[in-house]
Amino acid sequence: MIRPAELIERKRDGGELAPEEISELILGYARGEIPDYQLAAFCMAVYFRGLSSAETFALTDAMIRSGETIDLAAELGRKVVDKHSTGGVGDKTSLAVGPIVAACGVPFGKMSGRGLGHTGGTLDKLESIPGFRIELSHEEFVAQVKEVGLAIIGQTADLVPADKLLYGLRDVTATVDNVSLIAASIMSKKLAGGADAIVLDVKVGDGAFMKTLEAARELAEAMLELGRRAGREVVCVLTDMDQPLGEAVGNALEVREAITTLRGKGPADFTELALASSAHLLSLSDLELDHQAARKQAEQVVADGSALATYVRWVRAQGGDPEESALPVAPVVRSVAAARDGYVKRIGAVRVGVAALRLGAGRSAKEDAIDHAVGVVCKKKRGDRVQAGEPLAEVHARNDAGGAEAVREVLAAYDLADDPPPATPIVIDVVT
Amino acid sequence: MIRPAELIERKRDGGELAPEEISELILGYARGEIPDYQLAAFCMAVYFRGLSSAETFALTDAMIRSGETIDLAAELGRKVVDKHSTGGVGDKTSLAVGPIVAACGVPFGKMSGRGLGHTGGTLDKLESIPGFRIELSHEEFVAQVKEVGLAIIGQTADLVPADKLLYGLRDVTATVDNVSLIAASIMSKKLAGGADAIVLDVKVGDGAFMKTLEAARELAEAMLELGRRAGREVVCVLTDMDQPLGEAVGNALEVREAITTLRGKGPADFTELALASSAHLLSLSDLELDHQAARKQAEQVVADGSALATYVRWVRAQGGDPEESALPVAPVVRSVAAARDGYVKRIGAVRVGVAALRLGAGRSAKEDAIDHAVGVVCKKKRGDRVQAGEPLAEVHARNDAGGAEAVREVLAAYDLADDPPPATPIVIDVVT
Repeated sequence: MIRPAELIERKRDGGELAPEEISELILGYARGEIPDYQLAAFCMAVYFRGLSSAETFALTDAMIRSGETIDLAAELGRKVVDKHSTGGVGDKTSLAVGPIVAACGVPFGKMSGRGLGHTGGTLDKLESIPGFRIELSHEEFVAQVKEVGLAIIGQTADLVPADKLLYGLRDVTATVDNVSLIAASIMSKKLAGGADAIVLDVKVGDGAFMKTLEAARELAEAMLELGRRAGREVVCVLTDMDQPLGEAVGNALEVREAITTLRGKGPADFTELALASSAHLLSLSDLELDHQAARKQAEQVVADGSALATYVRWVRAQGGDPEESALPVAPVVRSVAAARDGYVKRIGAVRVGVAALRLGAGRSAKEDAIDHAVGVVCKKKRGDRVQAGEPLAEVHARNDAGGAEAVREVLAAYDLADDPPPATPIVIDVVT
Repeated sequence: MIRPAELIERKRDGGELAPEEISELILGYARGEIPDYQLAAFCMAVYFRGLSSAETFALTDAMIRSGETIDLAAELGRKVVDKHSTGGVGDKTSLAVGPIVAACGVPFGKMSGRGLGHTGGTLDKLESIPGFRIELSHEEFVAQVKEVGLAIIGQTADLVPADKLLYGLRDVTATVDNVSLIAASIMSKKLAGGADAIVLDVKVGDGAFMKTLEAARELAEAMLELGRRAGREVVCVLTDMDQPLGEAVGNALEVREAITTLRGKGPADFTELALASSAHLLSLSDLELDHQAARKQAEQVVADGSALATYVRWVRAQGGDPEESALPVAPVVRSVAAARDGYVKRIGAVRVGVAALRLGAGRSAKEDAIDHAVGVVCKKKRGDRVQAGEPLAEVHARNDAGGAEAVREVLAAYDLADDPPPATPIVIDVVT
């Protein structure tokens, strides 16, 4: 075996590593045989030199082989579709997409993550539903997908353990921000989870990890390439995260918004994204629908109430109370009033996300507890006309002091102008 | 305190850290509060982005403050001069320079290191002298410098512990090769050791760490700048390491060559380097000699035998037997014969160094034991005329098999040509 220091040196000098060399490095690290300081140096060398697409695939493959894999398609006897979002502020897409897709007859069994920092995680949102169990055994998970058509659970520790280790290391060594490492991290989990076809929602803008369309496109291309090499179908949607998605930011508030959207009364941008994502999933599924027919069917299950009914069955199956009235409510609700007349030109998504985080909706550190009731509701979105004194947003807080601080933060996040900004669609582009 | 990850990120992005930030990083690391994986990522970021001279000085200063410092000048009541070599093959310079300088009346108290890989260390050479003690207490060390004028000992663990830690980490993370980190490592030890004036021998060529004159000059400039900032006088000599220095490579063989040189009968290149280095040290000393007078005095103490007499007193003071006959002798001596007539065009220094290493003269790993008797003697040097069958070199081995292998290696290290190569002086340049 080649010494790890020599592999680090070769990458440092711009060389390419063979798949088996990357495999040795990653699996040796996962087994605890190669120390974290060597991986830290390797990741920093990768930050500066990049990885070729063959190296990125080798990395992804090695991470997958560090743990167990799931063959859901074999267990269900059907083609399996999955979705992933790179994360943003107010991103509750899975909560609407899951019921829509399942209501159309496509099984949707998904493993999700928790939020960290100003971006929320699907699991945290689900846990705001009283009684909801995010930990199911593998047998329970498969049985529920078969019976209800839908299950969303926490990712098991056995799946891609090397990614968990490596991400933790990258987080504290300033080596997160590399497109190959990000692509490998995301795709290793999707591939190990056994999806035959994957819809990737790459968020772009202030509230997203990818700040520019160029960076988002680069990540999308890297993930598409990994999908091609792994023989899976992948569609990337590049979507706007330059303002919070929908209106609600905060766990129970977002669950409520997902329910409203399944009733056909959700915010325009979130509704559009949920339907568009569902349509991509449906057209990749074994229903073999073209995109237009898939879109129609997604709209249909919302209109006829079957998506909402699926939501109710799903939540009950995982032990939760599906009633809106069961969701926790914050004791203090404050209005954020516009200081002038004008149009909403911009809503700083990070700023709103951080305001929600400080209210207690998210975690600054992994061990932080979450207050599921608190958050922000952005009543006015980009392009909306407002009058001075009119409510821009609502702050849902634990107490008066926290509410007052959040009101100031959210007000500062709103940028009002005399003229309306140019319209930006929620789905900026689709890359396949 | 700023999080280490933020400091790594700033360096990664090409920013400059404040002295107190570098200090936090290095001292936190030395105290075990900042983990090695963060320092590994930092060093790799430094590899790509470099350090400014202010940052390099802050690093040097922090490393010095990680341990104790010595004020030898105060203890001796005199200006203290010191020398350091960046290391090469056959580099026994301190063994000759120490006695010459001390014989001229300038106290020479030096802490040295061990060899690793194909370059030997002064301590290993000294330990080939039967009875020689490299570990003296600080009081013994100072007393001996006062009485004998000369002491060479191992570096104490209290001196610059952060450098030891950091070097060990850099060695296994492909981050050794950065001029700022090398300069800080060398100069931190010299400055902590209390030298007022320092002669730095920067080796250039195949057998040296710096392969090109340009790289050597860059390192010299970085160390001169650190000296300036620390208020010390520094002279850098750039010297040829494109063939072994002198003839002998191997511990006892090198001690014998140093004695021969102190008798005035050493190889031309080594004699010249010993005299030139001594002259630089003398002209920096409180004798206040100009370089020409210093050179004359160095030559004088060799010619009149007082340098050799100082050597004898010094070795005895440290418990060693100064007689040449006391040095260990290898049981097998094999001649390396020239395959053709011609001129020695080149002697691959690394190749000779590795041959000596394999014979047992050095260590591949820190815990390896050394055979002090074995090594290589390069009878013919670059520019020498040879006839087919004439001995180019001698191999001193533990056994026949090792000897035969070394003969092949050393023969391959010699490059013979029809015409003599252009002459290269041992001292290529002096930078101040």
